[in-house]
Amino acid sequence: MTDRARKSGPKEESLVRKVRLEPGKKVRLRDEDAGRRFGWEEDAARAATATLRGQLEALQHKFYADGRFALLVVLQAIDGGGKDSTIRHVMSAFNPQGCTVTSFKAPTTEESRHDYLWRIHRHTPARGEIAVFNRSHYEDVLIARVDELVPHEVWSARYQQINDFEQLLNAANTRIVKLFLHISRDEQKRRLQQRLDDSTKRWKFDLSDLKKRKQWDEYQAAYEAMLERCGTRHAPWHVIPADHKWLRDLAVAQILKDALSELPLRYPDVNFDPRSIRID
Amino acid sequence: MTDRARKSGPKEESLVRKVRLEPGKKVRLRDEDAGRRFGWEEDAARAATATLRGQLEALQHKFYADGRFALLVVLQAIDGGGKDSTIRHVMSAFNPQGCTVTSFKAPTTEESRHDYLWRIHRHTPARGEIAVFNRSHYEDVLIARVDELVPHEVWSARYQQINDFEQLLNAANTRIVKLFLHISRDEQKRRLQQRLDDSTKRWKFDLSDLKKRKQWDEYQAAYEAMLERCGTRHAPWHVIPADHKWLRDLAVAQILKDALSELPLRYPDVNFDPRSIRID
Repeated sequence: MTDRARKSGPKEESLVRKVRLEPGKKVRLRDEDAGRRFGWEEDAARAATATLRGQLEALQHKFYADGRFALLVVLQAIDGGGKDSTIRHVMSAFNPQGCTVTSFKAPTTEESRHDYLWRIHRHTPARGEIAVFNRSHYEDVLIARVDELVPHEVWSARYQQINDFEQLLNAANTRIVKLFLHISRDEQKRRLQQRLDDSTKRWKFDLSDLKKRKQWDEYQAAYEAMLERCGTRHAPWHVIPADHKWLRDLAVAQILKDALSELPLRYPDVNFDPRSIRID
Repeated sequence: MTDRARKSGPKEESLVRKVRLEPGKKVRLRDEDAGRRFGWEEDAARAATATLRGQLEALQHKFYADGRFALLVVLQAIDGGGKDSTIRHVMSAFNPQGCTVTSFKAPTTEESRHDYLWRIHRHTPARGEIAVFNRSHYEDVLIARVDELVPHEVWSARYQQINDFEQLLNAANTRIVKLFLHISRDEQKRRLQQRLDDSTKRWKFDLSDLKKRKQWDEYQAAYEAMLERCGTRHAPWHVIPADHKWLRDLAVAQILKDALSELPLRYPDVNFDPRSIRID
């Protein structure tokens, strides 16, 4: 970046690197300020996000045409962390032809009769496509661990299984972007209260959210283990300070743009000579 | 159209009604001008479409929250008719969380071993969701008829089967919007030539498109039969003049907005008293 660009505001690339977790690095979420702004102001961040949305749309078009790579975006956060909102504000830049969003809820009866990655695998993206997971296989080391849905030796084996699974996807040209939206306990309270107070948001309020709020420390520990043990070179985690929605959206948009930009995208060759064809 | 509406510019609703086909009405596509503008100019149409995109996004949000209705959008057109482009310019207004696009290609081996509606049924929208079909079960009375992929008695029985199938979906609260993008033979030539000439579009060129172009009259007859025999009160067809992309996009945006606006959408009730809840 030139000096001129540096003067005109925070550097895009550096925000991506700042939220990307070094593989294997220990994370203490209580030391991670969920309200960080990295020098950004709201208006500038919103404007930058709007610009990035246009770039994402254009990049996706070429990515779709290219057809050699897939992109998997994994979104994890506690209730109120902003998963839906991030999809609505950032991923909606993508053409739905070529982008699917899967929300993983409690497993169905049929899903429960398979290994936990079975239902996940069916929704991984085909080449040329983007798949966004709103929650994911990571729930199987989060709620499964905190609520002891399975014995310790079962969930503790899953970190390596997940790394192996993601390695398989990566070997088949699937880029994996993992986003952990990090909000503070106070911010969660504010957002849950807002859902209660706003009649257009009340339907999103789930009484079980209160139970999980009581398990705050257990969840934070489970997130830390997930971040440490499943951050890999091929599929690193990003810890996004998400108390400010506009900073969160900007960071996510930058990360997605980075992921697509790094691919050597090109329009496919054709197996005919265009000059030889006459359209009557 | 009333005189008052005429004075203030083209009236939105009237465009929807103008392209909607009366159930059972005969259609002669050669008499339908694919270049119609209905009094619209390009700039005004583009601006109106941009406004409608914002409205579609907001309507979808409430539709998703409501969760009682589903919306199925069926797109049919000849090659170069603008199916992909319509999705990119109009349906991209929807949040991909809650909107899926399925492109139906030649059936796979597994799909071929089932009835032709089997693969279609799996992709129909759940309540709260929008499904866009880029091609659809109508291919089974189009290419299947023109290329005689199945005997006459097989494809000719399908019109009624399709009406019954759509009636089933409708009875389960699925609104069905069927869009036929109508372009002229000259416009198809221009667009196919453009694909050949533009290196960023050449990958979309398919040699089989030329074969189908040679079957122009047979396809037009098959479209006419589809429009006449499968236009129903619950699931009417719209014949969109699509030589002008901006007119096409405007008409489609208006039709989608109409379909969502007509639903009695509301935010769901909750089964608890919000005042009784305290968030610690």
